[in-house]
Amino acid sequence: MDPQPLYRQLANHYLGAIKAGTLGQGERMPSVRSMMRLHDVSLSTALQTCRQLESEGWIEARPRSGYFVRQPRRVAMMPPEEPNFGLPPDPAQYVGIHARVSDFIAKGRASPIKVNLSGARAAPELYPAAQLKNAAIRALRRNPELLVRSCPPGGNAQFRAILARRALALGMVLSPDDITITHGCIEALNLALRAVTQPGDTVAVESPTFYGLLQILESLGLRALEIPAGTGSGISIEALELAMQTYGNIKAVVVVPHLQNPLGSIMTDVSKQRLVHLCEQHGVALIEDDTYSALVESEVPLNALKAWDRSGNVIYCASLHKILAPGMRLGWMVAGKWQARVAMLKYAQTRDNEEWSQIAAAEFIASTDFDRHLRRLRAALRPQRERMAEAIAAGFPLGTRMTMPQGGITLWIELPHKLSAKKVFDEALRHQILIAPGSMFSNSNRYDAFIRVSCGWRYSEEIDDAVRRLGHIVSGLAR
Amino acid sequence: MDPQPLYRQLANHYLGAIKAGTLGQGERMPSVRSMMRLHDVSLSTALQTCRQLESEGWIEARPRSGYFVRQPRRVAMMPPEEPNFGLPPDPAQYVGIHARVSDFIAKGRASPIKVNLSGARAAPELYPAAQLKNAAIRALRRNPELLVRSCPPGGNAQFRAILARRALALGMVLSPDDITITHGCIEALNLALRAVTQPGDTVAVESPTFYGLLQILESLGLRALEIPAGTGSGISIEALELAMQTYGNIKAVVVVPHLQNPLGSIMTDVSKQRLVHLCEQHGVALIEDDTYSALVESEVPLNALKAWDRSGNVIYCASLHKILAPGMRLGWMVAGKWQARVAMLKYAQTRDNEEWSQIAAAEFIASTDFDRHLRRLRAALRPQRERMAEAIAAGFPLGTRMTMPQGGITLWIELPHKLSAKKVFDEALRHQILIAPGSMFSNSNRYDAFIRVSCGWRYSEEIDDAVRRLGHIVSGLAR
Repeated sequence: MDPQPLYRQLANHYLGAIKAGTLGQGERMPSVRSMMRLHDVSLSTALQTCRQLESEGWIEARPRSGYFVRQPRRVAMMPPEEPNFGLPPDPAQYVGIHARVSDFIAKGRASPIKVNLSGARAAPELYPAAQLKNAAIRALRRNPELLVRSCPPGGNAQFRAILARRALALGMVLSPDDITITHGCIEALNLALRAVTQPGDTVAVESPTFYGLLQILESLGLRALEIPAGTGSGISIEALELAMQTYGNIKAVVVVPHLQNPLGSIMTDVSKQRLVHLCEQHGVALIEDDTYSALVESEVPLNALKAWDRSGNVIYCASLHKILAPGMRLGWMVAGKWQARVAMLKYAQTRDNEEWSQIAAAEFIASTDFDRHLRRLRAALRPQRERMAEAIAAGFPLGTRMTMPQGGITLWIELPHKLSAKKVFDEALRHQILIAPGSMFSNSNRYDAFIRVSCGWRYSEEIDDAVRRLGHIVSGLAR
Repeated sequence: MDPQPLYRQLANHYLGAIKAGTLGQGERMPSVRSMMRLHDVSLSTALQTCRQLESEGWIEARPRSGYFVRQPRRVAMMPPEEPNFGLPPDPAQYVGIHARVSDFIAKGRASPIKVNLSGARAAPELYPAAQLKNAAIRALRRNPELLVRSCPPGGNAQFRAILARRALALGMVLSPDDITITHGCIEALNLALRAVTQPGDTVAVESPTFYGLLQILESLGLRALEIPAGTGSGISIEALELAMQTYGNIKAVVVVPHLQNPLGSIMTDVSKQRLVHLCEQHGVALIEDDTYSALVESEVPLNALKAWDRSGNVIYCASLHKILAPGMRLGWMVAGKWQARVAMLKYAQTRDNEEWSQIAAAEFIASTDFDRHLRRLRAALRPQRERMAEAIAAGFPLGTRMTMPQGGITLWIELPHKLSAKKVFDEALRHQILIAPGSMFSNSNRYDAFIRVSCGWRYSEEIDDAVRRLGHIVSGLAR
């Protein structure tokens, strides 16, 4: 028997028809009444089927006419131009990136904000609050000494076991003992970098990249070398190879292979394999930040960079922060040949994590609820991204370019005429709209004309209005 | 009306009589029946009164004779010799301390252990497991989005407010905004050291000191300068002043003013004041680790070093780990003039702590339960320390010396004839007894003939037997 609820089975039936083209774009869905007759189901099941397909962005309701297969308005917008991969990169020491980033964050916090498009996290209602809460309460009830007893060294055994089991799907064969539990992916990246570098060393990063990484590098006294990355397959392996030949002192490369932040790029397997080999060949540690892979819309399974690692040269870092529970700082890492050093640094830096979060998370991840949650999260984010992209395409002036990533929570937008995103940021703030300007993502001024917008919120009237305002602001400044 | 339960009021009544000498040492307590008559209380109240006084170590039961005022067997043992404060200290870079400490820890973990006297934490049953658990469950129930929402920047407001309120008792006048929440005191010390030093800098520490601190220094590439400390008032201000005049590059001093680990010393107010002024005068940051102050048995209130800080030169670090909840990694710090830098480093290192622990802890600390718990914890530790000391005095050979600290969880023992504690450690391990050898607490070999033993467990037959065996081992090796 199919274990899925009836409405889900029926939704899958229609989804198949839509994907096969049997139900073409713009065509009308059978009415609710005819669905009841056709499939011998109740009104509530028929309605739930339609609402499910609507929430996933496959069909849309038209007043007094019923449901229609949604016609993705073609987003007539080019992706941002690929960088010139041939030019040698400029080494830049990230002194000051924190001040710049803090400045933007402080401005955002000091102003009244109605629409916050600056984050890279989904809305709280897209995470399984009640289920996690119940798992946490069960963990506390079952282990009466949980809060007055230290965590076993290295982390909770069940949590590490279930993480190791799930890593198989990313092509990694791990033992639970290979895994170190950390306070979020941020601590994992800190430990990885501290394990393989000394202050003053150079670290190659994607350009643009996640500003949290630039802050970590600055705080550790490391020099960052920006390697151009494209919206397609991410970091340029050619440019990285050139940089390795040019600069002798690159100690590590940090890469986000899946849904790179902010580009949204996904590396191909070929590219991943070349990167792993290149780093191994040059004796450069490869640090993989895999925060977003569970948010990729993909029919084929993804492979972590670590899947090609034969010598322990890849340090895999991930967390549950963006995909399961923004209120739990649960990260984890597989430190390969640096595991003993990472364990030492972790012990000296923060000791072991609290065990209660780990037990609660382990219970949830081990259940079928986790995959169901991930499917729902991806299904909820898809129409949010699409509607955001449509609104930008409709409201922003000619010459705007935009990524359309295969998943995730953000879009990366190139403004026309090299328009200063800082000006757009300031002007948007006056309208109580918060965005992330491109200069947060690089120490070069290469991305000053970019903005990153969040699609983490349910696409509402208010957001639609904010995007239209942003379009006006950009048009006004571009004139 | 007295809000305390009847048995507690009655216990206080008798405690007063014992302290005043009205009930002399060795004298018999009124029988339970006569207490019932005298105070018009139930059998259960009279019994509970006696048990309470017994658990606090004031009276003891003798079979078939009733309760007697306990006569502390005079522990005829000298404290360890004071170090020579006049000699200039040797600068030592702590490369390798981690390996040495890990070696001891790994040996302990690899062996079957019956009696673990190596820690500096009380037994789980001395912490309020059920109350904390209930507070955590209430926090989860009241805030349904707690696990799917990030913590507000800087930490939970109620938690910081109640910490600021309690800091008043240590002479610190703080606003909640002065406080940064950290993952335990260990992260606070990391952040403090990272804020005020660069790798290669020298940091003055007490000798002997907490091995966790030596590991942090090693992991951050800092050089440690050991300043002699005594079992009385802790660090020698004279020796520190001499060191500051001799070495120009001391960037910070780390001090545990209350129940120094492992010495158990408590600094006098005069000493504290001189230390604060000395550091300010020399432009050296003063980092205060105040993990244990709530465990001090003191009639007069204690003052933090920070209480004398007028220029923001003192960084105060503390945690709830040892005094409230070993299963919650809740630390906090007041970083004075380095607050902005500490906030940056904390954000780049681990972001904010999870909010749920903070809410649960805040509720407990704000209630009267917290002070009641602390009184009970101190009252439980007192007889545990005393009985341990008595057993050591009785079972260890002549020439052994020992601290008798005014509170806390450990005793520091100097073995006779410069006996190697490493040998005692190995031999004890064969008897499934774990201790902490002195060489974990210094990079010099000055403490090779010392051991630290925990008094965190209820003093049982099994522990008594273990201490006797330790005495035999020491006697055997000393011959």
